[in-house]
Amino acid sequence: MAEPFGARLRERRRELGALCVGIDPSASVLEAWGRPPSSEGLEYVAREILEVVGELVAVVKVQVAFFERFGSVGLRVLERVLDDARDVGVLTIADAKRGDIASTNEGYAEAWLGATSPLRSDAVTASPYLGVGALAPLYRVAGESGRGVFVLAATSNEEGRDVQEARDAQGRRVRDLVLDEVAARNERRDGLGSLGVVLGATRDSPQFDLSRLGGPVLVPGVGAQGGSLEQVARLSAACAPDTVIVNVSRAIAAAGPDRGALRDATRRWRDDVATL
Amino acid sequence: MAEPFGARLRERRRELGALCVGIDPSASVLEAWGRPPSSEGLEYVAREILEVVGELVAVVKVQVAFFERFGSVGLRVLERVLDDARDVGVLTIADAKRGDIASTNEGYAEAWLGATSPLRSDAVTASPYLGVGALAPLYRVAGESGRGVFVLAATSNEEGRDVQEARDAQGRRVRDLVLDEVAARNERRDGLGSLGVVLGATRDSPQFDLSRLGGPVLVPGVGAQGGSLEQVARLSAACAPDTVIVNVSRAIAAAGPDRGALRDATRRWRDDVATL
Repeated sequence: MAEPFGARLRERRRELGALCVGIDPSASVLEAWGRPPSSEGLEYVAREILEVVGELVAVVKVQVAFFERFGSVGLRVLERVLDDARDVGVLTIADAKRGDIASTNEGYAEAWLGATSPLRSDAVTASPYLGVGALAPLYRVAGESGRGVFVLAATSNEEGRDVQEARDAQGRRVRDLVLDEVAARNERRDGLGSLGVVLGATRDSPQFDLSRLGGPVLVPGVGAQGGSLEQVARLSAACAPDTVIVNVSRAIAAAGPDRGALRDATRRWRDDVATL
Repeated sequence: MAEPFGARLRERRRELGALCVGIDPSASVLEAWGRPPSSEGLEYVAREILEVVGELVAVVKVQVAFFERFGSVGLRVLERVLDDARDVGVLTIADAKRGDIASTNEGYAEAWLGATSPLRSDAVTASPYLGVGALAPLYRVAGESGRGVFVLAATSNEEGRDVQEARDAQGRRVRDLVLDEVAARNERRDGLGSLGVVLGATRDSPQFDLSRLGGPVLVPGVGAQGGSLEQVARLSAACAPDTVIVNVSRAIAAAGPDRGALRDATRRWRDDVATL
């Protein structure tokens, strides 16, 4: 079995810090970079960002929707981006937010975490609307292949509160149920399990004691989405040491397409999150 | 602008009834049909089911995970299945359960509902963990292209209850918030809006008055997943007339690969739901 994702992430994080660069080749980024709204434009932007940032950071997060937008041809581009990432050695999180039940989740698990899948990533994001427990096939395949899963707990957008802050019959909030279940399922290997959560920096702290999560905490929404570094630092202080990963997408892509500017922006953000 | 999805669905439902056949070419179906666990096996099973059932029912639902499992090659197969469906004239629901925020949802909307996307389907399923309101780009693109969205409200699996039955500060359950928001956004054209919900037959009735949803209700979980026709009939009675669509996947695929048996099973299920 491959070395578990949690151990690999901890190792690279030690070396390169807490920054995760989001590869989000959206329509507006393609336009800002002067590239056509086509799979060629997509491929240029995505591989260019990866080439510049791949050696600077521990992990990149690819936003699957922007590849899927171009159908199977777009997913083929994503497969090449993931190939590139493996060559460079940077870890990859496929931000797919998949989630279903039973054998359907096995399909998604094989797609994103299967040892020989062309879309295999080091970790995938998962959405628990059909139940945190329903994601079990993803946890299982991740364990078998040394990969990881980040389950959405609380996101940084306002609209998410209706669902994420709702309470069960015992008064526990949905986001805390997610944290609780992930903590219960994490195998603590080398100090960091392979099951993580997505937790927006712009939210109040959960009731759940984050220091006992046992896995990584992926924090989106920093920079363009309104989250501040102070909020991230507060969240980080509530987590176990060295477990927070901070994703920055738009604020870095906006520095492109100039390679030097892209590199500088990445280094600046890397320094900004160095103390987390 | 194309004729809205709701109007097209109502028309075909009038003609062919409430049955939706699920095209779920899972690993176990491929094996049961004696086909290899490859994109070739996938393509054979998916196109064969479509060819037999396409003229018998109003709508088919393709389970995206089983195509995604094979990466970009699998999605290319799905594009061919969707092409076939357009040729036959059967409506398609892409069961993708996508859901994110802002521009990311625009990516998904373009992928599944965009007028020229290779993956374009007549409707897509969406997951509201990041907020029912966050799905707005999907609703907008669906409206522009005459397509539809089915938002997950309550699913048929037990694990889903933690999230779907949780309550907001006003005591309203998450599933009811979904129903409420979809009802509020539906444009009632020709008596049936283009925004629907997914509602498991194995659940208690929601507090929300389903008769004012204004859009179609997709009911999964019938047959192999334990939902009974009596439960569906009860749910249907609570909805506006002629708005329920009943999905059957495994119980029909299990009759294959023999074409005659597949056809007979489809006709039997079609008759069974004829009175809904």
